[in-house]
Amino acid sequence: MFTYDMSKAAGPMYKYIYERIKADIESGNIGPHEKMPSRRALAENLGVSTITIENAYDQLILEGYLEAEPRRGYFTCDIGDRTLIETPVLPRTRAVHKKDIQKLRFSFSSDKAPAGDFPFSIWARLNRRTLSMMENELLEIPPVSGILPLRQAIADHLSHFRGMQVDPDQIFTGAGTEYLYGMLVKLLGSDLTYCIEDPGYKKLKKIYESCGAVCRTARMDQNGIQVKSVNDCKADVVHISPTHHFPTGITMPVARRYEILSWANEKEGRYIIEDDYDSEFRLTGSPIPSLKSLDAGGKVIYMNTFSKSLAPTIRISYMVLPPELAEKYMMTLGFYSCTVPNIEQYTLAAFIGEGYFEKHINRMRIYYKKKREEVLSTIKYVLGEENYRIVENNAGLHFMLELKTRKKDSDIKAALENEGIKIEALSDFYMDGKIRNTHLFIISYSNMDIDELKKALKVLKRQL
Amino acid sequence: MFTYDMSKAAGPMYKYIYERIKADIESGNIGPHEKMPSRRALAENLGVSTITIENAYDQLILEGYLEAEPRRGYFTCDIGDRTLIETPVLPRTRAVHKKDIQKLRFSFSSDKAPAGDFPFSIWARLNRRTLSMMENELLEIPPVSGILPLRQAIADHLSHFRGMQVDPDQIFTGAGTEYLYGMLVKLLGSDLTYCIEDPGYKKLKKIYESCGAVCRTARMDQNGIQVKSVNDCKADVVHISPTHHFPTGITMPVARRYEILSWANEKEGRYIIEDDYDSEFRLTGSPIPSLKSLDAGGKVIYMNTFSKSLAPTIRISYMVLPPELAEKYMMTLGFYSCTVPNIEQYTLAAFIGEGYFEKHINRMRIYYKKKREEVLSTIKYVLGEENYRIVENNAGLHFMLELKTRKKDSDIKAALENEGIKIEALSDFYMDGKIRNTHLFIISYSNMDIDELKKALKVLKRQL
Repeated sequence: MFTYDMSKAAGPMYKYIYERIKADIESGNIGPHEKMPSRRALAENLGVSTITIENAYDQLILEGYLEAEPRRGYFTCDIGDRTLIETPVLPRTRAVHKKDIQKLRFSFSSDKAPAGDFPFSIWARLNRRTLSMMENELLEIPPVSGILPLRQAIADHLSHFRGMQVDPDQIFTGAGTEYLYGMLVKLLGSDLTYCIEDPGYKKLKKIYESCGAVCRTARMDQNGIQVKSVNDCKADVVHISPTHHFPTGITMPVARRYEILSWANEKEGRYIIEDDYDSEFRLTGSPIPSLKSLDAGGKVIYMNTFSKSLAPTIRISYMVLPPELAEKYMMTLGFYSCTVPNIEQYTLAAFIGEGYFEKHINRMRIYYKKKREEVLSTIKYVLGEENYRIVENNAGLHFMLELKTRKKDSDIKAALENEGIKIEALSDFYMDGKIRNTHLFIISYSNMDIDELKKALKVLKRQL
Repeated sequence: MFTYDMSKAAGPMYKYIYERIKADIESGNIGPHEKMPSRRALAENLGVSTITIENAYDQLILEGYLEAEPRRGYFTCDIGDRTLIETPVLPRTRAVHKKDIQKLRFSFSSDKAPAGDFPFSIWARLNRRTLSMMENELLEIPPVSGILPLRQAIADHLSHFRGMQVDPDQIFTGAGTEYLYGMLVKLLGSDLTYCIEDPGYKKLKKIYESCGAVCRTARMDQNGIQVKSVNDCKADVVHISPTHHFPTGITMPVARRYEILSWANEKEGRYIIEDDYDSEFRLTGSPIPSLKSLDAGGKVIYMNTFSKSLAPTIRISYMVLPPELAEKYMMTLGFYSCTVPNIEQYTLAAFIGEGYFEKHINRMRIYYKKKREEVLSTIKYVLGEENYRIVENNAGLHFMLELKTRKKDSDIKAALENEGIKIEALSDFYMDGKIRNTHLFIISYSNMDIDELKKALKVLKRQL
């Protein structure tokens, strides 16, 4: 017993001895409550130093395999009945961590940002400067809302660009809007009913439901969400994008804005989440004023993201809370850590504060306007004016294409899919389960290759 | 009517005209359904071009103040009854976004990372390389679990450093452990009962409760959480830190590990969350094997973070799910976006993959070991051996100081606070509401200034 073959030791000897004794206890070769040899005796037996045995015993004591009893020596512990622990053969995980990349030749609805877009060199420079000049600040734990310089920069940007006067203390940054929605459900309550636009962005329903809340849908008309429908679904919180609805592109007119604000003001605890995800990309005219800027009653929670305006993988979004809610947030959820890395926060604060963000937006607006025109004239050239109508309002990175056809939306989609082309219909964005044939298809043009578009449109034309 | 003083226009003229008409409609100066002058008439009247009026009218139409009726001209819209919208004077937000920085001279429990720690120059270099060489990858939207190279690097690290064999597809990264706890509640269910260690990290209770779950506490003994107590609180999920409990420093012995694994295996749907937050900082001997490495039944969810090992403001944590749960995560929550920016993910993947992380850990371990010895000898020198006992097990960045005193913990804390010194007692970490006097105080030494420590200890000595 205890004559381990020391020639087999790879690595430190104490570790080899520790492992062998552990294995003997685990397997039951050494039973519980047995007296172990003294350090000196085992050291002599194995031809190692006493300190080696001591190190091995110490580790075994720490992990609970041995106990040292004063003046009596070392004893094995009872590591208990392990028969209850089954050892099934675990299935190899089949989890799919890749976004399902089908072999697509072309997609009419890709929202991938074009690589040429992102101001890599400026970002890298500001990043480097932040890393070299702000060592202390970078290690300082920020409040849950984010560092003040970033919140100040966002407040200034909202003032210049959106005409919104907000206090930096109303601003809360987070690692993406989805994260912020989750925090909002924590803040407002998962026992409330949340209501989203139908048709609309289906993922929102999944997000609210995964947070434990009830999520209903309210119908849209040509002016946006219908207040009657919001009332019918007994919503407490309504989530809308009044500037530029996805996917219809509808801008909510001011009358409907006042109507929905009235709805919120009628009852304590009602709120509107204004999702302003692509307001930067109004391609002509002035920006549409935000709903928040009409909100005298403190009922609008404004949300925006740098995913659309910078890059989807930047993971910085923010919300502007009414003062009352901002205070409640700090009181009830202020213990949470901010989810945005300090490095990114300081870099973005400099990027906005030093004017690069505005320049970037302007550059992108020109780029997108040009791209949009190219895409529109390509559509005209390939499909022929008589075969379609464009439904758009000069905003955002997508528009709708109405096809003059009697074919079902699903048939057109299936036919294109057979040729490796993905296209989404407005009817896909309805959540009431009814089958529709709107003949309206979504064109997300920001990253479209014109030659590939031509080929895809030719396939589409054959389907009309 | 419509004779606006054009000399007052600042900025584009169309915008000035748009704003004046809008203000007139908002104020009721122009009522609903009134016919507007034609573009030409108004242009002549104001002495501007027709195109200027057209731009103003277009913006007003878009925002819903005007309607164009074919062949009839422009009419004002009914913007509705706004009397319901109150205009209260909003209180200026008093939300406290600063971590409450009291004027402290010294804290025995600061967990601020020392600035000298973070490998700024290497990080900056890898960051720069990532930004310049991976433009396309940086804009590619990753799966919710994070980019594969990072998950692979973490899997390799766990294999080398922790002896854990896990598939990268079992690994899920996120913007901090708090975020991952929230996702776990979504995955496992907010209708389950979560159980944490008492004494322990109180914030966990707040986090689980803010996610809508029931959170109970189970008592600790010298071997860690008591399985009987876990059973008594009817827990479904138990959250423990078996390697190095905070704040007691207890390492759970192997017998208790098998006992808690048996508990989990007894019933479908039971899980153990293993919080391995500072396992990298075992200062002598071998690392303690993780509970996960004993987990044959797929019952242990392993959690770790780079907050402790790199910097708290890095915001990258990860969890290792049993294969079954990893699959369920992708199926039910795979629609979520990953919360860690791509730049940070690629930089960290390189940092680990190229060996810098291991070097950093080793360097920090030596630094902390030295710092710990300095702190221990300073305590001995100032307090005198007869007045205290150190409770520790050579691990982590904190230990406990047992004072030989009959004074109440709260009296000692209050006396020190009067002198601007913060100290936390073990009794502060109990959650059952009972008042205890453990005479045990937490010493977090990682960032301690030895001269300041001496002064603080002298104040402490006067209280014994």
